[in-house]
Amino acid sequence: MNLPEQVDILEVGPRDGLQNLSEFVETKQKIELIRRLAASGLGHIQLGAFVSPRAVPQFGNIREVAREVMASLPGVRFSALVPNRKGAADALSCGIREISFVFSVTKAHNRSNVNKTHEESLAELAAIMELLPVYPGAEITADLATSFGCPFEFKAPPERVLHFIGKAHDLGVRRITLCDTVGYGNPRQVAEIIKRCRDSFPDTTFRCHFHNTRGLGLANTLAAIEAGILSFDSSVGGLGGCPFAPGATGNVATEDMAFMLSEMEIETGVDLPKLLETVGFLQEILPSAGLESALFRAGLPGGRRRSCP
Amino acid sequence: MNLPEQVDILEVGPRDGLQNLSEFVETKQKIELIRRLAASGLGHIQLGAFVSPRAVPQFGNIREVAREVMASLPGVRFSALVPNRKGAADALSCGIREISFVFSVTKAHNRSNVNKTHEESLAELAAIMELLPVYPGAEITADLATSFGCPFEFKAPPERVLHFIGKAHDLGVRRITLCDTVGYGNPRQVAEIIKRCRDSFPDTTFRCHFHNTRGLGLANTLAAIEAGILSFDSSVGGLGGCPFAPGATGNVATEDMAFMLSEMEIETGVDLPKLLETVGFLQEILPSAGLESALFRAGLPGGRRRSCP
Repeated sequence: MNLPEQVDILEVGPRDGLQNLSEFVETKQKIELIRRLAASGLGHIQLGAFVSPRAVPQFGNIREVAREVMASLPGVRFSALVPNRKGAADALSCGIREISFVFSVTKAHNRSNVNKTHEESLAELAAIMELLPVYPGAEITADLATSFGCPFEFKAPPERVLHFIGKAHDLGVRRITLCDTVGYGNPRQVAEIIKRCRDSFPDTTFRCHFHNTRGLGLANTLAAIEAGILSFDSSVGGLGGCPFAPGATGNVATEDMAFMLSEMEIETGVDLPKLLETVGFLQEILPSAGLESALFRAGLPGGRRRSCP
Repeated sequence: MNLPEQVDILEVGPRDGLQNLSEFVETKQKIELIRRLAASGLGHIQLGAFVSPRAVPQFGNIREVAREVMASLPGVRFSALVPNRKGAADALSCGIREISFVFSVTKAHNRSNVNKTHEESLAELAAIMELLPVYPGAEITADLATSFGCPFEFKAPPERVLHFIGKAHDLGVRRITLCDTVGYGNPRQVAEIIKRCRDSFPDTTFRCHFHNTRGLGLANTLAAIEAGILSFDSSVGGLGGCPFAPGATGNVATEDMAFMLSEMEIETGVDLPKLLETVGFLQEILPSAGLESALFRAGLPGGRRRSCP
């Protein structure tokens, strides 16, 4: 098994996790959650989405949250999700330098998710690329939703994924996140799509974003690592879900991913006992959110803390 | 990714799944469960353990169950777990021809699980090997519990696993199941141990038995497949658990494993919609058993049954 020494985890709980909740998380609690995530060793955090508060009320307080955590946690890399130029301009003017621009590989999901045609999304991306040089150090990732399947169109052919990476590449994007938005991917498909992406775009860095809807999140992560991926999105407590997949769970739980990687001797920087305390905090502030976290339920292997008989 | 065309699933729910339950499952219901598992395409089923009903009351009806399902389901391969010669003799005299003899790689777990020293377990295995030739077609698998870790002694060094495979091999055993009894294994370790086992015992067939305690069951399955394993134990509904791991879940759920394999275009013979109905039946007859099945919760991907917009 050809494994890396280190993997970068982008904690997307404050964004992908919270966006699916009906409860609004107050500014103070959101800041405290992010503070605790950072204290658990997560040095790369997506703090929300810059979207209309009418579309997603959860991010109505994103400016205050961003201002506070960027001031108090200078060692953390913060990113934000945006669906258009306006969101990118807002994020950049808040001081955020990592922009994730999201659009979907499938037409129907792009319409339902960001209410745009592909042409409209690519025009927004082009406008963002013109804006970026104004902000030194700013960088962009294109997050390709439904890269492994779509609730409306089911399988996204790899050619379509490559086509849209090509479109983003033409505009100057060199970071791509392949997103399994509703948990349709399988390890074989993951390995194949990643190989084709890396072969076709050798100057581009790929990361993966898996949901654990049907339990394949960590197997897909393993397949992606073996295919050369070095960075992943995950969400504390496995928070999240998808309005288009009833019964679905959220992203791969950060603690489960960090546990698997740690057991495989791959460094992530995560302090697992502290992260489990943070999951406990999340459960306290969101008692009705169904957390899907195998490690939180089972705990760290007990044998470690016992003496041998 | 080097993948096989086909994988053999041994359904161990009626044994490993039920043995952890406090509720006794009546003979009729147990037979109906096995009948439905077979009708879901599971052609290889472990129907219970031949042990003292005082030790595990759940298997007090194993003779009636075995007699009935072997008579009514002639196309299914049935196996039974045994911890000693007496259990093997009972299983063989019931007509069962696949015997799984269980002992643990770690001393403390062998004591707590089968109340024997390693010497005593190996003596039982030797006695079973003498008994086998009396029953034409009888075959034996040694199930090595705690091969990937132990709740008492934590990590089992691979050398110890190889040592006990060697002992079984000396007695003539050529089928080994590597069992992650409490869900401590990780994909790197799985790949490494399997490689060492296969290199050291090229005339022996290995299968794997993973628990999903900390969510790594399917990732470990994937690692094992890539390392050349072609057969796996799993348990319908993810039923089970371990008395030594509070909060632990059971074996990898059969439906989750079959779903992953099916999505990867690896044949298992399982009819997924029928198997999900069988999980529903299991939940009906065992309403208080916490099933841990991602596929049962999320359902098959909806896109398959929808038309493209």
